[in-house]
Amino acid sequence: MISKLIDSIRKKEAPIAVGLDPMLSYVPSWITEKAIAEHGETFEAAGSAILEFNKAIIDSVCDLVPAVKPQIAMYEQFGIPGLKAFTETVSYCREKGLFVIGDVKRGDIGSTSEAYASAHIGKVKIGNTALPVFDEDFCTVNPYLGSDGIKPFIEACNECDKGIFVLVKTSNPSSGEFQDRVLHDEDSTLYESVGFKVNEWASLSMDGRYSNIGAVVGATYPKMGEILRRIMPKSYILVPGYGAQGGTGKDLAPFFDRDGLGAIVNSSRGIIAAYKKEKYAKFGDKAFADASRAAVLDMKEDIRVNVFK
Amino acid sequence: MISKLIDSIRKKEAPIAVGLDPMLSYVPSWITEKAIAEHGETFEAAGSAILEFNKAIIDSVCDLVPAVKPQIAMYEQFGIPGLKAFTETVSYCREKGLFVIGDVKRGDIGSTSEAYASAHIGKVKIGNTALPVFDEDFCTVNPYLGSDGIKPFIEACNECDKGIFVLVKTSNPSSGEFQDRVLHDEDSTLYESVGFKVNEWASLSMDGRYSNIGAVVGATYPKMGEILRRIMPKSYILVPGYGAQGGTGKDLAPFFDRDGLGAIVNSSRGIIAAYKKEKYAKFGDKAFADASRAAVLDMKEDIRVNVFK
Repeated sequence: MISKLIDSIRKKEAPIAVGLDPMLSYVPSWITEKAIAEHGETFEAAGSAILEFNKAIIDSVCDLVPAVKPQIAMYEQFGIPGLKAFTETVSYCREKGLFVIGDVKRGDIGSTSEAYASAHIGKVKIGNTALPVFDEDFCTVNPYLGSDGIKPFIEACNECDKGIFVLVKTSNPSSGEFQDRVLHDEDSTLYESVGFKVNEWASLSMDGRYSNIGAVVGATYPKMGEILRRIMPKSYILVPGYGAQGGTGKDLAPFFDRDGLGAIVNSSRGIIAAYKKEKYAKFGDKAFADASRAAVLDMKEDIRVNVFK
Repeated sequence: MISKLIDSIRKKEAPIAVGLDPMLSYVPSWITEKAIAEHGETFEAAGSAILEFNKAIIDSVCDLVPAVKPQIAMYEQFGIPGLKAFTETVSYCREKGLFVIGDVKRGDIGSTSEAYASAHIGKVKIGNTALPVFDEDFCTVNPYLGSDGIKPFIEACNECDKGIFVLVKTSNPSSGEFQDRVLHDEDSTLYESVGFKVNEWASLSMDGRYSNIGAVVGATYPKMGEILRRIMPKSYILVPGYGAQGGTGKDLAPFFDRDGLGAIVNSSRGIIAAYKKEKYAKFGDKAFADASRAAVLDMKEDIRVNVFK
């Protein structure tokens, strides 16, 4: 799977994923009001509003970027109708030729991780019929439970030609509380230790130069990104935290390999809620999707200037 | 919320949660076949089969135990129909007076954890209407992202009178890969360090003698349980891993306080798939729920003899 994503990154010259994290506060009020007029103040209204919002943005940016990263929490918060909007978003993106990275951060004991892996990147058997479920191309996975919790995802990658990104160093301010702790026996940090494990797991699902087993490392920690880039030479790095969370174009270079590959940068708020920023205010809330397109073009340029100069 | 759970544990004399993790292989074939006859080999069939299976077990054990712990992965794997069965299971359990511990192991950066907390133990606002979503009483949370990822859950606990259990030392064989690593600066392990944090977080949501902020510690690691019981005196411990995963009654004593409180032990397979074990084979697959009841009674006795002797 990773080689297909890389082909698309090359073709579109954009190592970018658009984070489809439609908080209701990002959705223009005219969309929400229309949905509430039709469905009342219900989860159906929320699901309908975020789906309409997503589709407009997808239409507007799908020729520019290779991938999207829907954050499932933003759909799960609207219950069943929200999760229906998630599945419809996933299939709409795939129709448009976009790769879908489900940001689900699942992870559990072996038998349970197997169920999650089937749900997100594998298939589930009912009687004699094997069916895909949420059917993302990639998903994110939490490593706290160790190999037991990761192996079922690796198996699903190999069986169904999919990929995962394992959380290594997350973008949030408190990520250091545990991840940065120095370990006694090897004088490395927990995030480095997780990185070493990712590098082991990566060899179990190689697909060309890179592995289907990637890692998540926040743009907000570029020095750690540099270290982790060396520790995990086979793994693509999914880099959240660019834009609204504080990561800048200058911070991104360490995440990439010398060949210009090895990383895909996510921006969520900065793109999908661009129309709310002063810089793109001229678009207004009717043309919010055009503002998103402008923000993607600016992000491409920011990466070109700062990473590929 | 924890004080209500404790009242029910006392009244029923059972510090027990029944794990409602209905893998299709646990569901008697006559139920699955009936569902497939009606819905075809679809997720609707799976959702219908696991809901029927759950309801029979709930009816059979609800007077014996205070709580259930549905593992959401087992529902998520059947897509939208599976998650509908999850919500119907949650509300059926609550109608029967059972406390519901949603085993969801969510956890993300702050804004995203807020969405998860709202989805599982809080409320979500659509227009001017605040609605509960999956509406469990408790849920489990992954600590890898640090305080940012936990705080929104604590806020939801305080706003909506709910509780959480933070993963500290999980029951699976590879849990030690990261959790048991010794930290350089304090000569304690990662799981102890997470335990210290849980103890800090616990003081933010006290409810009588105990806090709404509990911890998950596997029955398979009783010595670590003993250490963690001391580190987190305010926290209830949710103890998975009893039964099928290898934890025995003798392993449970260290998780409890001297007053006999402080822990609630989960058994999933051992109860819901009891009819498949030789010991309960006499019930047959038609009376699977009676086998579950017998297994609960045996578990109660095992705990009484080994913990409260």
